[in-house]
Amino acid sequence: MDHRSRLREYRRWLAVAAEQAALGAREGGVPVGAALVDSRGEILGRGRNRRVQDGDPTAHAETSAFRAAGRLRDYGDTTMVTTLSPCWFCSGLVRQFGIGRVVIGEARNFCGGHDWLAENGVEVVLLDDAECMRMMGEFIAASPGLWNEDIGA
Amino acid sequence: MDHRSRLREYRRWLAVAAEQAALGAREGGVPVGAALVDSRGEILGRGRNRRVQDGDPTAHAETSAFRAAGRLRDYGDTTMVTTLSPCWFCSGLVRQFGIGRVVIGEARNFCGGHDWLAENGVEVVLLDDAECMRMMGEFIAASPGLWNEDIGA
Repeated sequence: MDHRSRLREYRRWLAVAAEQAALGAREGGVPVGAALVDSRGEILGRGRNRRVQDGDPTAHAETSAFRAAGRLRDYGDTTMVTTLSPCWFCSGLVRQFGIGRVVIGEARNFCGGHDWLAENGVEVVLLDDAECMRMMGEFIAASPGLWNEDIGA
Repeated sequence: MDHRSRLREYRRWLAVAAEQAALGAREGGVPVGAALVDSRGEILGRGRNRRVQDGDPTAHAETSAFRAAGRLRDYGDTTMVTTLSPCWFCSGLVRQFGIGRVVIGEARNFCGGHDWLAENGVEVVLLDDAECMRMMGEFIAASPGLWNEDIGA
């Protein structure tokens, strides 16, 4: 697959994550979404931040998507696609389980551990997506207390 | 509190985590236990690895204890006590949420990210506990496949 086709595919995966984020926003939650995708593009699990919805501080978007995929034996050929740069917790998840690639909607509203992942052999693709940026920017402006709680700031 | 009294207190907290690990072993799970403790020694949450019990690959001991504590606003004065050195996922949790101290039963059967935490300002106390070592060593010898799955190896 050439570079352009790959980027189109990443954007399709990002749309799945962004749909989760938008759903989270409608629920009054933190609007970050994610999906775990296999090498053929099949969605293994999808999820969104559920801190507010479930009162669960471990339910970040990436951990929710990873949990939804259930028990797997090898993550090397999987991609974690997320609307926002993964925090240290979610970056640690990617590194520990050897997820091969992370596709990130944006890293302007929050920059987590994705450089650390790249340094440690994970393929990191940053899409700098305008819609992800807008959604997160509006949320942080409207709910700074909830956002700071969610990242332990 | 002097050094000796502090160590006695850490060992009392470790006993809470070890009780969780032993419970996990009896359930056929991965025998790692943890607790989140506040500055007065009150247990905010306790948990054990629940990969087998719940089919949940995000339910490491530390994430389970953190989840059980619910939504909190500041973790700086809390301690995560765990029977085993925290993996990258759980180390990322500690770093992201600014948990001030990690007390570790042992790091011989598995050495995770605790040096990285120490480099990043977390107080790390390693107790080198014989009972934690024995429990984990026996589990790894008996169930190497389950153990490797749990750490993505």
